[in-house]
Amino acid sequence: MQHAVSLARLIDALRALPGVGPKTAQRMAFHLLQGGRDGARTLAAALTEGLASVRRCKRCRMLTDAELCSICSATSRDGALLCVVESPADVVAVEQSGSYRGRYFVLHGHLSPLDGVGPEQIGAREFEALLDSGEIREVILATNPTVEGEATAHFLGDRAAARKIQASRIAHGVPIGGELEYVDGGTLAHALAGRHSV
Amino acid sequence: MQHAVSLARLIDALRALPGVGPKTAQRMAFHLLQGGRDGARTLAAALTEGLASVRRCKRCRMLTDAELCSICSATSRDGALLCVVESPADVVAVEQSGSYRGRYFVLHGHLSPLDGVGPEQIGAREFEALLDSGEIREVILATNPTVEGEATAHFLGDRAAARKIQASRIAHGVPIGGELEYVDGGTLAHALAGRHSV
Repeated sequence: MQHAVSLARLIDALRALPGVGPKTAQRMAFHLLQGGRDGARTLAAALTEGLASVRRCKRCRMLTDAELCSICSATSRDGALLCVVESPADVVAVEQSGSYRGRYFVLHGHLSPLDGVGPEQIGAREFEALLDSGEIREVILATNPTVEGEATAHFLGDRAAARKIQASRIAHGVPIGGELEYVDGGTLAHALAGRHSV
Repeated sequence: MQHAVSLARLIDALRALPGVGPKTAQRMAFHLLQGGRDGARTLAAALTEGLASVRRCKRCRMLTDAELCSICSATSRDGALLCVVESPADVVAVEQSGSYRGRYFVLHGHLSPLDGVGPEQIGAREFEALLDSGEIREVILATNPTVEGEATAHFLGDRAAARKIQASRIAHGVPIGGELEYVDGGTLAHALAGRHSV
């Protein structure tokens, strides 16, 4: 059926959200225009405000609304450790593990020449400038265990090695609490190849 | 970790969307503030426009941005048939079946005294006014086959009967293409009780 123009426009706009198809977008639009009108108003305002004030941290490229993000400006952080991740969500995940007290560098993607993503797009220049600052002792490469993520880790590891800065890769293997039976073959192969003596 | 203020506000606002939890809201916010900035702008504008112009059709309570919705204002529709549904999404579903050429009445809910939803909230007065207009010959009660939906259908059917207008309930049973083996007990019991001779 033909929706009213502004309703159709809202349904269409909601499809810009990741993971939202036509049915979900319609359900969201109906909700926002009925019981959820307050939420719709708040959302419109938050979008406008976010677009105006959220940008990348000058140092680590994390999303922030100040010059430096809360992690880069915290004095309690160990400035000698630099954890390199692909996305802001990865920073959140590492932070939630509660096991890291260093700083981050967010690539916003991974090397993918076919998609036009080269060293410049992932901030290689800013990364090298950080290494050259003399503050960093170890770079922890926490890109995803995909072909592109591995290639990106290799590329950045080389940059660190050229400056005699230690680079490490996070461990990949069977997840804690996971059962061998249900772990995929690739992960198991990786876990076997990466075994260490006890 | 502590998100930047305006980022946290956006994540919070996105949780107003139905079916969106904290993780999904965070993923949406990161997307909207990075590659999806155009989409975010469009969404903010569509929300503002929708809030300003989408309202209920004066006649059938469907969402529209005019006085009357496209169905109520279409001359090709059979004004003698009135299909009563619980939500605007139900109108869309019936329209997509392509098998109905009458008009609708949207309740925006069902009778639920414990939640403070009485006849007034589901538009019983407007419904009775429509019946009294003398145009309607049959009311098709297409509320959901839940306890509340059945009670609502019963209540509205009584209103039609009082005016000697025929009321019917849509059929409930085994879905077309469904296999008996996988149909739940309640539906099967309903299908058996509602059997008709061939």
